[in-house]
Amino acid sequence: MQAHTPEPPYYAVMFTTTRDEADDGYAETASAMEALAREQPGYLGIESARDDALGITISYWRDEESIAAWKANVDHAAARDMGRARFYTSYVLRVAKVERAYTWQRPIDA
Amino acid sequence: MQAHTPEPPYYAVMFTTTRDEADDGYAETASAMEALAREQPGYLGIESARDDALGITISYWRDEESIAAWKANVDHAAARDMGRARFYTSYVLRVAKVERAYTWQRPIDA
Repeated sequence: MQAHTPEPPYYAVMFTTTRDEADDGYAETASAMEALAREQPGYLGIESARDDALGITISYWRDEESIAAWKANVDHAAARDMGRARFYTSYVLRVAKVERAYTWQRPIDA
Repeated sequence: MQAHTPEPPYYAVMFTTTRDEADDGYAETASAMEALAREQPGYLGIESARDDALGITISYWRDEESIAAWKANVDHAAARDMGRARFYTSYVLRVAKVERAYTWQRPIDA
């Protein structure tokens, strides 16, 4: 499901990753981090998709302060270290300010 | 692979979609649109991942003008119509200004 974010402006953290074959606790850690993010002040939503080539996770935040607090979270920092040591072969993290958004849904009778 | 984008600022168009089971030409259209986007002025890169629940495509652009030109492209507009009619059950499109980015790669000797 897409995240039900409020009207812009808000912030997006785009995290695109490549991984090893080995799973090694990845799914558990990813799901624990998602649960932890949901508890953070300023958290607005998360979207995630992964196929063989790439994983993309976008989390949405009210403001820069929320992102800074999430970055400083101790359990999150530990998971980042584990990600670098065990899960990821590469990642790119981008922080962006969402300026506008459009939603479309297929009409029910279609 | 992640997109090799230049130093921020630049723009990101985040397109998150849910789809029908039926494929119905989706892969061909998606790949044609990606090839077409690459030819646009101001195009910086694209990242895409899809699993059963969600598809996420992020395209990167030099500026708002590049995004507006890509939006106005006639073949792209036709593909959007087809997407609404045949491929997608819902989508959210967000336009964001990337303010900062970090890249990490596992060291070769790891």
